[in-house]
Amino acid sequence: MQVNTHLQQLQGNYLFTEIVNRTEAYKATHPEQRLLRLGVGDVTLPLPQPIIHAMHQAVEELAHEDTFRGYGPEEGYIWLRQAIIDNDYQPLGIDLSTDEVFISDGAGSDLGNLSELFGRNNRVGILEPTYPAYLDTSAMAGREVVFLPCTAENHFVPELPKEQVDLIYLCYPNNPTGATLTHAQLAQWVDYAREHHSIIIFDAAYESFIEDSDVPHSIYEIKGADEVAIEVRSYSKSAGFTAVRCGYTVVPKKTGLQAMWLRRQCTKFNGASYIAQRGAMASYSPEGKAGAQANLAYYKQTADILLTGLRKMGYQVFGGKNAPYIWCRVPKGYDSWSFFDHLLNTCQVVCTPGVGFGKSGEGYVRFSAFSKREDCEEALKRLKSLAHSKNL
Amino acid sequence: MQVNTHLQQLQGNYLFTEIVNRTEAYKATHPEQRLLRLGVGDVTLPLPQPIIHAMHQAVEELAHEDTFRGYGPEEGYIWLRQAIIDNDYQPLGIDLSTDEVFISDGAGSDLGNLSELFGRNNRVGILEPTYPAYLDTSAMAGREVVFLPCTAENHFVPELPKEQVDLIYLCYPNNPTGATLTHAQLAQWVDYAREHHSIIIFDAAYESFIEDSDVPHSIYEIKGADEVAIEVRSYSKSAGFTAVRCGYTVVPKKTGLQAMWLRRQCTKFNGASYIAQRGAMASYSPEGKAGAQANLAYYKQTADILLTGLRKMGYQVFGGKNAPYIWCRVPKGYDSWSFFDHLLNTCQVVCTPGVGFGKSGEGYVRFSAFSKREDCEEALKRLKSLAHSKNL
Repeated sequence: MQVNTHLQQLQGNYLFTEIVNRTEAYKATHPEQRLLRLGVGDVTLPLPQPIIHAMHQAVEELAHEDTFRGYGPEEGYIWLRQAIIDNDYQPLGIDLSTDEVFISDGAGSDLGNLSELFGRNNRVGILEPTYPAYLDTSAMAGREVVFLPCTAENHFVPELPKEQVDLIYLCYPNNPTGATLTHAQLAQWVDYAREHHSIIIFDAAYESFIEDSDVPHSIYEIKGADEVAIEVRSYSKSAGFTAVRCGYTVVPKKTGLQAMWLRRQCTKFNGASYIAQRGAMASYSPEGKAGAQANLAYYKQTADILLTGLRKMGYQVFGGKNAPYIWCRVPKGYDSWSFFDHLLNTCQVVCTPGVGFGKSGEGYVRFSAFSKREDCEEALKRLKSLAHSKNL
Repeated sequence: MQVNTHLQQLQGNYLFTEIVNRTEAYKATHPEQRLLRLGVGDVTLPLPQPIIHAMHQAVEELAHEDTFRGYGPEEGYIWLRQAIIDNDYQPLGIDLSTDEVFISDGAGSDLGNLSELFGRNNRVGILEPTYPAYLDTSAMAGREVVFLPCTAENHFVPELPKEQVDLIYLCYPNNPTGATLTHAQLAQWVDYAREHHSIIIFDAAYESFIEDSDVPHSIYEIKGADEVAIEVRSYSKSAGFTAVRCGYTVVPKKTGLQAMWLRRQCTKFNGASYIAQRGAMASYSPEGKAGAQANLAYYKQTADILLTGLRKMGYQVFGGKNAPYIWCRVPKGYDSWSFFDHLLNTCQVVCTPGVGFGKSGEGYVRFSAFSKREDCEEALKRLKSLAHSKNL
């Protein structure tokens, strides 16, 4: 038996482990201190009542003979796929058919598994800094990776690749930088993909944070994108589903990949939980939408408080608008990890070191608007006294 | 961009589509007839109350700030992994550590995704007839497949492969034949794998149907199996979770694959639904166990009624004991599909043609004990009159 040597040789991703280790070590020696966790990339507000109600109903249906159901369609229930088209795409003027929409147990699974559609000998373009899964998934498949650096100089939107890349992972609004693309910028990538016969895997997990009209909600707002783009979305951030597990992926027929993805899913996936799909469906009712919007408004306000507060103190900050993440340049004399340590030791503030997302992330830390409001406000207070003493 | 040509070239699996098409065509021309569906491979009884209660509680936790939770561990909650060890393995004298147990959204996902642990150049041994996913997954990875025919002559337990096979999918109690292995028979496969440095992927989805003491519940009952075997289990049949989605996979450290599987799951999976995991946990409470056992007892009795009824009429039947499936030889002059048509047209009985599971399945049909009891009893009545007239 031969193992997958690409997977075997892949190093562990130690970013979050290392954060936990350093935080725990601090807590052990300073048990009296309250830590302010501003690194959280996970929702913290309870689910809206209409979604809770729908999931209770779904659970109850499974308790009775006349309403019990077993396996659902691997690609998801038709009512949810239709609701997605009606609510998430039709208003944008995008035409999709239900068999181009695939319900999953979350964007994380799809972003990993989509890799199976492609042969090994594809060159992959990856924004850098990056959500680690794109890179790790490409490495597991043994593919060559071309990094596309995102820096303050290019406003965290990289230049088009100079060499041929066959697969491109784009995540906008971006994790971790909080950057967004305009329609014109995204159109350049679609044009590139069309010219180079590439496929764009568009991770739209943070789409619900978009407020500006010039930021596209879907890559299919760009003409011709349905020939070259797969779009991955999630209810994790839009409806707070990180524990519930539900997302979806659009694979247009014009990409030539729809039948292959259906075959993949029918073979290796038995459908998303019925309870989760009922919950997702409820997020499209007027009451469900209102509840989800209220939660989103809260996170958006937290982002604004963080962004404004940090900027006032003189920090150079990016993102935080149309995105839940604030990407903050560390003061001179620090790098990502030493500034992380500094904030932990002097303010008991836990952030995420930017270098953990790749070497272009060096010199930054990420703050998250999913963190508790009172932690953010208290953190800003503590940072303020620090700013004074450190003359930022 | 190059597609995965192995996936692209894979033919559709038309078994269940073809069954639906023929059944619908019959219904269209005979709208007055009630069809008796004996092909169902999916549970039909409602979930036990203690499991329903636990899932309601989990949903409610997500509704309140003080009990809300987001992402869980990718490998599953520690309380569920410990309960699995305490309830499913400790009583069998099997020692496992919690980091060898991985919770998933169902056996279907794991049986597909485990393929990623291995390099392309492995030869795969697959029992034939087979659950189609083993074969399709191997084909998608571009691996050479060696079929191991299961026939009445070998009691549906194939001979050990004459040539080297590197990966072996074993499913016992078997789908579709309903065959089981004794400890001694399973030990031969473990010995083969140890000698040939192969890995056995042991699909134990129907483990909860085992009643005979000589049929192993886990491959780890065999000494040395923890060096060569991965075991995949599901709550789908044991607790009726086909809509809920939860299962687990054991990857012992001694296989050398545990760290790789953890890395794979942490990259491409964001954990099973919290609600599903709480439901699975409740299946281990005394009340949950009693409820699940009551459902299983019902299916087991249905299997016995079918097996006994068919045997009395002179059909040559296999399985149906320690397994939910009855594998029935078709009468002389028929093949799988013509007997399927015959039953549909004369008795309005829907079964599953054996040839759909591979060519060694030709000459058989599969009946399922998950079918409704009244449908089974009525089907036996209709078959009886048929048996008389056809002199089986």
